[in-house]
Amino acid sequence: MTRTSTATPLAPHPDRLFAADPAARTVARTVYQAVADAPIISPHGHVDAALIADDQPFADPASLLVTPDHYVLRLLHANGVGLDELGRPDRSGDGSVPDGRQIWHRLAAHWDDFAGTPVRYWFETELHDVFGLTEQPSAENADAQYDHLAELLTTPAFRPRALFDTFRIEVLATTDDPTADLAAHARLAADPSFRGRVLPTFRADAVFDPSRPDWRHVVTSIGQAAGIDTGTHAGLLAALRARRRYFIEHGATATDTGVLDAGSTPLSTAARERIHTTALLGPASLTEADAVAYRHDMLYRWAEMSVEDGLVMQLHPGVHRNHHRPTLERFGPDTGHDLPAVGSFTEPLRPLLEAFGTAPGFHLGLLPGRLRRSAVVVHRHPGGDRPVPRRGHRLGVVIPARHDMARRADAAYLASLVVSHQLSEEDAVRTAHRIVSDIPRATFKL
Amino acid sequence: MTRTSTATPLAPHPDRLFAADPAARTVARTVYQAVADAPIISPHGHVDAALIADDQPFADPASLLVTPDHYVLRLLHANGVGLDELGRPDRSGDGSVPDGRQIWHRLAAHWDDFAGTPVRYWFETELHDVFGLTEQPSAENADAQYDHLAELLTTPAFRPRALFDTFRIEVLATTDDPTADLAAHARLAADPSFRGRVLPTFRADAVFDPSRPDWRHVVTSIGQAAGIDTGTHAGLLAALRARRRYFIEHGATATDTGVLDAGSTPLSTAARERIHTTALLGPASLTEADAVAYRHDMLYRWAEMSVEDGLVMQLHPGVHRNHHRPTLERFGPDTGHDLPAVGSFTEPLRPLLEAFGTAPGFHLGLLPGRLRRSAVVVHRHPGGDRPVPRRGHRLGVVIPARHDMARRADAAYLASLVVSHQLSEEDAVRTAHRIVSDIPRATFKL
Amino acid sequence: MTRTSTATPLAPHPDRLFAADPAARTVARTVYQAVADAPIISPHGHVDAALIADDQPFADPASLLVTPDHYVLRLLHANGVGLDELGRPDRSGDGSVPDGRQIWHRLAAHWDDFAGTPVRYWFETELHDVFGLTEQPSAENADAQYDHLAELLTTPAFRPRALFDTFRIEVLATTDDPTADLAAHARLAADPSFRGRVLPTFRADAVFDPSRPDWRHVVTSIGQAAGIDTGTHAGLLAALRARRRYFIEHGATATDTGVLDAGSTPLSTAARERIHTTALLGPASLTEADAVAYRHDMLYRWAEMSVEDGLVMQLHPGVHRNHHRPTLERFGPDTGHDLPAVGSFTEPLRPLLEAFGTAPGFHLGLLPGRLRRSAVVVHRHPGGDRPVPRRGHRLGVVIPARHDMARRADAAYLASLVVSHQLSEEDAVRTAHRIVSDIPRATFKL
Repeated sequence: MTRTSTATPLAPHPDRLFAADPAARTVARTVYQAVADAPIISPHGHVDAALIADDQPFADPASLLVTPDHYVLRLLHANGVGLDELGRPDRSGDGSVPDGRQIWHRLAAHWDDFAGTPVRYWFETELHDVFGLTEQPSAENADAQYDHLAELLTTPAFRPRALFDTFRIEVLATTDDPTADLAAHARLAADPSFRGRVLPTFRADAVFDPSRPDWRHVVTSIGQAAGIDTGTHAGLLAALRARRRYFIEHGATATDTGVLDAGSTPLSTAARERIHTTALLGPASLTEADAVAYRHDMLYRWAEMSVEDGLVMQLHPGVHRNHHRPTLERFGPDTGHDLPAVGSFTEPLRPLLEAFGTAPGFHLGLLPGRLRRSAVVVHRHPGGDRPVPRRGHRLGVVIPARHDMARRADAAYLASLVVSHQLSEEDAVRTAHRIVSDIPRATFKL
Repeated sequence: MTRTSTATPLAPHPDRLFAADPAARTVARTVYQAVADAPIISPHGHVDAALIADDQPFADPASLLVTPDHYVLRLLHANGVGLDELGRPDRSGDGSVPDGRQIWHRLAAHWDDFAGTPVRYWFETELHDVFGLTEQPSAENADAQYDHLAELLTTPAFRPRALFDTFRIEVLATTDDPTADLAAHARLAADPSFRGRVLPTFRADAVFDPSRPDWRHVVTSIGQAAGIDTGTHAGLLAALRARRRYFIEHGATATDTGVLDAGSTPLSTAARERIHTTALLGPASLTEADAVAYRHDMLYRWAEMSVEDGLVMQLHPGVHRNHHRPTLERFGPDTGHDLPAVGSFTEPLRPLLEAFGTAPGFHLGLLPGRLRRSAVVVHRHPGGDRPVPRRGHRLGVVIPARHDMARRADAAYLASLVVSHQLSEEDAVRTAHRIVSDIPRATFKL
Repeated sequence: MTRTSTATPLAPHPDRLFAADPAARTVARTVYQAVADAPIISPHGHVDAALIADDQPFADPASLLVTPDHYVLRLLHANGVGLDELGRPDRSGDGSVPDGRQIWHRLAAHWDDFAGTPVRYWFETELHDVFGLTEQPSAENADAQYDHLAELLTTPAFRPRALFDTFRIEVLATTDDPTADLAAHARLAADPSFRGRVLPTFRADAVFDPSRPDWRHVVTSIGQAAGIDTGTHAGLLAALRARRRYFIEHGATATDTGVLDAGSTPLSTAARERIHTTALLGPASLTEADAVAYRHDMLYRWAEMSVEDGLVMQLHPGVHRNHHRPTLERFGPDTGHDLPAVGSFTEPLRPLLEAFGTAPGFHLGLLPGRLRRSAVVVHRHPGGDRPVPRRGHRLGVVIPARHDMARRADAAYLASLVVSHQLSEEDAVRTAHRIVSDIPRATFKL
């Protein structure tokens, strides 16, 4: 692509995210260089395994880069663009969907609205490093950029598996329904030509909350998948254990669960069975108190199962998913309408931690909603209370940009400790390696 | 004024609030200079419109700069000075009030207690830029400074309208009672010699809470002002709609409401009417649950009216006003005893947002208490979650100091993004303009 | 000690914690130097007065530096080391305890896990400044360092009183049970050869909560210590008043109280007496609501007594002590398992503040759990909302390292205000003096 004279250059700076102070910048460069090319361990992705197993070309630039990305949608929607105009199917509409080129024009027209946001940062890195663009998107270059991207997506180098290699992804964990057959994971594992690891993650939010309209359906489906009658609570637990084993056989090392609060008080067997039986009669039969008690008990059982089978337990308390019901009804989930809730962990998690907190091999990953702005995954930093963001990445192609950003942010923070003489440069480099490689491997038992 | 040899100079630095790093400072200067002289848009002031309409000289330095400023009072009171000693009429006292000179001496004696606070920062800028003082207040110069200030206040350049022009205020929104006749606003709008815009804001907190002792009086007064019987809830809503229209006819573009929590669950018409009728019998007849339900429904109605008439809806949930009742009883409100409360927004606002959140033209400005330390008004920053403070300004004469501080803080933040290569300098300047002019104009429909 | 060729040097940098920017660093040095050698006022220590009164040599390096320090234990435990392996007696174990040398080896083996933490920072300063070590602990030098430390502890310069002088401690407040005879305090006060001040602090958490299993025992013991029958609530209040007087006679200027929440609603005399009588029958007789109401009333009484007798009232709401019950049962309290709770202060403290908040001489020190990560004590900073940490110090020998860290952090913060022209250098130095000396003296009435 040749740049027109009026275009604004797109050229991510090699020192971006580092402090301006020359001493701190020099250290940050050293720390960053030590881990810049380390393989990517992505223990908390949202990529579909079939995408990689099938290795089909991506359809078009907009359906890859705009429509499925809830960060991008949220910012555009907040600036007045309808979700239907961005390619999300509108269940209350006439079924028509704009073509990719129109969507790209809308993105370009609102490019200034992204200024200074992490979304713009990721997007710029992605467009430049992965796709070789050298101009900021604009109304003038929207057609040319769209054509360039669309052409690249037809080439072998932009097939999912090729990108997986190019990005140096070593491990990618997907998020999967408890009834999933994991056929794509099995195909990848059996394929000698594919050298990465794509692991399933057991995500069964719906089974926790018997007041959900889909709870009965989910409970029945899990029973069918496991070949175990889930008409009793004991049956449900047995079916869940069976499905977890199935996931482990397919490489899973972790579960992932979102709950409204972190309550974990266990119930007696009798109480659990009673609520389970009542809930199977339908949501109308259930009191709110019983539904909450059931949910809290299930969180306790989750930890109990993790101690038994060794799956790492990831927990996201305090996120209201799909907060705006009319938008959910029109456009479905994952349109950028998840909001954090104020929540407490100390007291709610106590029953669970008292029972299992010091059990050998029990790993609990707490991902609090209020720290998870933009759905980042938070690890505790070895150097203090500062959370270290590890980006989720609904889209394979933004994975390297998000990991690179995290490595840069870590390098800048570690450099600030070095120049204020709280950490030696050697310890900073060692800590960066631990953050990028050792800690995710150990935490997720990879 | 000549400086004595022992005086400490008062000389606000041209680079104040900018980072020390030379590269960052250079960028901050550029960004700041681009907006330093932009007209002031003050959509959330607390100035009395009659002050400007009447254009009478200010009485004396203390009653302008100390007694009405709840930030200043709070700091002095926290350092042991009685509110009665600062000119607040004491309802339990003998009615005597210290003269302005005495109050100024008290301020000077405690000047060191302000060191490093935003209040000192504002005060220094104000005393230097508006009043030309060149020494820090002290016991030694208190009389001389008081005389200097008092003399200035008698001159035409220090009349309210002259200051309005000097400060380059383009729009000033006041806060007004729903029964206000807005005569001063009308006079200003009709006066060809006055070129600024002074707009009323509809603030009707008392009508939300039927457990307040003044609720019945307020409901009746609104009915009288509107010429509509408010004996029914339907009547009250009609009267409120009429008063909002009256405000719109006088230039209002916004309402402003403080509520203890952000609950917004609507009630049926029957339930609303029942509670309304009960509440009119007096607070004793009302259960707490009914009072809360009524309040939450009214918040829902408020959004409904905003969708109808287009008034921007500002909401301050979670502030306990006049927290210390004995002080309220002795000295009245606005003495610096408003405290933030821990609150949630995500779930409480859901009914309102689900009903009206995507209605065209509906603007909701959330001003959470915990971010509003010192009663600053918070706008979402285009560059992230960092709140951008836009100071409230109970006092006209501190308006330029507070807006200047905000512009400097924004310039410093944008410069930090530029030197860490997250934003180009051009985008930083453009963003500064948006923050200072475009966003307030668009948000408040000016 | 001679350094081996592979050892990593232990050499705390004279500019540590200061910003890298040369201008800010120069100012920080100036501010720090002005207070670096100021006497230590430690109003909130956890040292046992008998330790100083008896002046016996410390037993061995591990039982001084590792086993009693809950920060060190927490980090080692989080990295997989059992508390029993660190010298904490295990009530469910066989009674064997590792010797100090083994414990020191475990610390050395995990030294890298401390990188970048405040614990490492304190530990390095302590080992270097107090004990003269010049190498980072490691497996290679563990025996040599242990021998060096053990030998030093046998010398007169490392007796508690000698260290008290070396550290320039002017005032040290201990934390004491309401029934304590304070004999050690009396001995120190009567000893003309000891020139420091060691003051008791009245800490009676157990008396607040009648649902605690030890409440009846505590109430009876306080009655016995005071010679007053505590079978009635009036009797308990009289006994508490008597014990507070006893503490005041022994030099106390403050109480310290940890409560789960800050509720302070008073009860009628009749209600208090009724709950008190019920509670004396045993926890089973008591409803949870009554227990909470009793606790809230007691907080109100605490403030009432402070207004009467002038003791400063320190309050720690919102900390769950010994969160992990199995660990508490095996290893006792203070092993690093205190967790902060989300809490509100504004509304809960209102009754107390309305009754006593403006009483002359009433000092309330609020130490919120969420700001007290790592159990630091928080004072409000004169320059804003930034909390100024004053470290608690369970261990006498880490006192200077923690105060030095606080003085450096304050100097760095004040320097940042100076270089951004928000504070003059003279005001920064004056403010540093206030933080280190004047404010603790005034706050704690020393």
